[in-house]
Amino acid sequence: MTDSMPPDAAPPEAATPAPRPYSPGLEGVVAAETALGYVDGAAGRLLYRGYRIGDLVERGTYPAVANLLWTGEWEPHHHLPTAAVPDAVLTTLRALPSTAKPMDALRTAVSVWGATQKLEWPPTPEQARALTAFSPSALAAFARIRQGLEPIEPDPDLDLVPGFLYQLNGTPADAGTARALDAYFVVGAEHGLNASTFTARVITSTRSDIASAVAGAIGALKGPLHGGAPTEVVEQIHTVGSPERAEAWVRETIARGERLMGFGHRVYRAYDPRAKALRQVAESMDHKPDWLALAIAVEDVALRVLAELHPDRPLKTNVEFYAAPVLQGVGLTPDLFPATFALARHAGWTAHVLEQAASNRIIRPDANYTGPAERDLPA
Amino acid sequence: MTDSMPPDAAPPEAATPAPRPYSPGLEGVVAAETALGYVDGAAGRLLYRGYRIGDLVERGTYPAVANLLWTGEWEPHHHLPTAAVPDAVLTTLRALPSTAKPMDALRTAVSVWGATQKLEWPPTPEQARALTAFSPSALAAFARIRQGLEPIEPDPDLDLVPGFLYQLNGTPADAGTARALDAYFVVGAEHGLNASTFTARVITSTRSDIASAVAGAIGALKGPLHGGAPTEVVEQIHTVGSPERAEAWVRETIARGERLMGFGHRVYRAYDPRAKALRQVAESMDHKPDWLALAIAVEDVALRVLAELHPDRPLKTNVEFYAAPVLQGVGLTPDLFPATFALARHAGWTAHVLEQAASNRIIRPDANYTGPAERDLPA
Repeated sequence: MTDSMPPDAAPPEAATPAPRPYSPGLEGVVAAETALGYVDGAAGRLLYRGYRIGDLVERGTYPAVANLLWTGEWEPHHHLPTAAVPDAVLTTLRALPSTAKPMDALRTAVSVWGATQKLEWPPTPEQARALTAFSPSALAAFARIRQGLEPIEPDPDLDLVPGFLYQLNGTPADAGTARALDAYFVVGAEHGLNASTFTARVITSTRSDIASAVAGAIGALKGPLHGGAPTEVVEQIHTVGSPERAEAWVRETIARGERLMGFGHRVYRAYDPRAKALRQVAESMDHKPDWLALAIAVEDVALRVLAELHPDRPLKTNVEFYAAPVLQGVGLTPDLFPATFALARHAGWTAHVLEQAASNRIIRPDANYTGPAERDLPA
Repeated sequence: MTDSMPPDAAPPEAATPAPRPYSPGLEGVVAAETALGYVDGAAGRLLYRGYRIGDLVERGTYPAVANLLWTGEWEPHHHLPTAAVPDAVLTTLRALPSTAKPMDALRTAVSVWGATQKLEWPPTPEQARALTAFSPSALAAFARIRQGLEPIEPDPDLDLVPGFLYQLNGTPADAGTARALDAYFVVGAEHGLNASTFTARVITSTRSDIASAVAGAIGALKGPLHGGAPTEVVEQIHTVGSPERAEAWVRETIARGERLMGFGHRVYRAYDPRAKALRQVAESMDHKPDWLALAIAVEDVALRVLAELHPDRPLKTNVEFYAAPVLQGVGLTPDLFPATFALARHAGWTAHVLEQAASNRIIRPDANYTGPAERDLPA
């Protein structure tokens, strides 16, 4: 009993305690140690296990990068085909409404997959590999089923990204298209402790299984504050129409006070290294598709105009600026963009699951209670 | 390519930074403010919106308590029947292997349910109500389907807990059985910021939907570090066999250095208020089942012997000690215990979803990078 307490106060233990310092959004709180991804926003660097994202895009493929994240070993020719979809998953995907969001379908497919597997603790690179190889087949199956088409079996000779495109379209992708989407998968594979990756680590920290962790992560990525809005970039570039119209369009858009989509990023103050890597892949193509040539033209004009108007702090291109045209260019409909991002991020999520499990401690923060003090129920 | 692009040579900031203070497991970090549940381990108090858990069990039902958590209003006769299971969910549950874990089936059912609903942002009490009413029907359906039985339609006249028992067993439960399980649902409804509730809040913080949040929370609760092991309590009490054997069994177990299941808790130093509330319900029953009389006898002996052997800090009964016999007593098989706990926790999870959404900020902690410094890929 303290002096400041009124005489008729409840006993000391009945009072709720003084609030402790609160960290909204856990901003600046270090919740994990990771050897996987390093995001250096000031310098525009993104490293996976120390390797620069640009080098990984140039010399690797998504299976090699995923394997690097899981095992720490760099095997540039690592092969990972897509995996077959269990019957229970196909039955479920056929039962979903054709209007279901692809992210809901993917989250569900991962959950059903988990229910059909023996996923012993601790999670293993083999589990990570199996789940990462399963999901592209499942998403492709849903994309076909909702159009009334039959799903296509995996081709074991194809690597993960061309395999996904084959199962989506029913025909092999040309090399340039597959290369562009593979580059997108590599730059999307891992990005430190964002909300979805953190979700996967929290779930894993209870010693739950890898499918539970990834289903939770997909649910988190589904939120528009996390998954972003690449669709709008596509719409803007589509509006421009041709390279010679780019300068007038950029100036008019800014003059109207509208936002240029695909520029500026919360973390990256310098040029987003993922955008840079995707542009380099685009520029190295023998036969650049028209949409890519247009995107490059729009970017050049936009960067020049933004630097002219805001010389002290010009906005830089972010990853979505190139992600969107790449995704559309390879034939994906915009409503598949978020789920395709989720496929790419499987490598990072599952690598964080392995890392969390390897030195695990349950993640269980505190809360300040701000509700009513102890009271009686109304009579 | 622009002037402002970083040069290829590594700039000074290319070194990775000194690690910042790290909070393993986020222990002691305040990640949320909540007016829902207050856990006072020192005094053995658990409050929902200020009301003592014992009072809520005595005077309310699970629907009234869930409604209190969602809305802040105390309506002791609030009615909430179980809801129908959409066809897509039934098709999925039929497609799962009969050996699938009930937690995997429940996580999947919630995911499919989400894919069939229009879940606009922000989440609403109506969404919380609909999901909380759906899941018992889905779990009961899976429990029957895996035995080769047909699922049973909800009875709109029954409240949620007797409705669940009816859909599970095909016959109405007697009043005492329904009352015991309802009390279990009330004490399991909410418990502050544990790992599964935190998962639901992280997913919601991206502006994702309530089904994504609850599917993630189920995945987290599935982990044995979180969901606990009520099955072992059942086995121990079963081993005792009859009240007169209790004392000898307790002394022999402790003498062998084995653990008494259902005693001791990380947070509660005093008697777990949830165990106390469940015992009170049990003791007030007109016709106490044998298993409950046995549990009470074992507890009395165990508390006396533990106080005799460790007078400075005797272990106190925890919620699992009564949860387990209640769950078994109402006819649930042990492999349904974790999923039934998840059903009870739906009220708290969804209330936290509403609370997070009402003053949202994306939950995105930092990580210390502990991997290799920037390096070249091997030649």
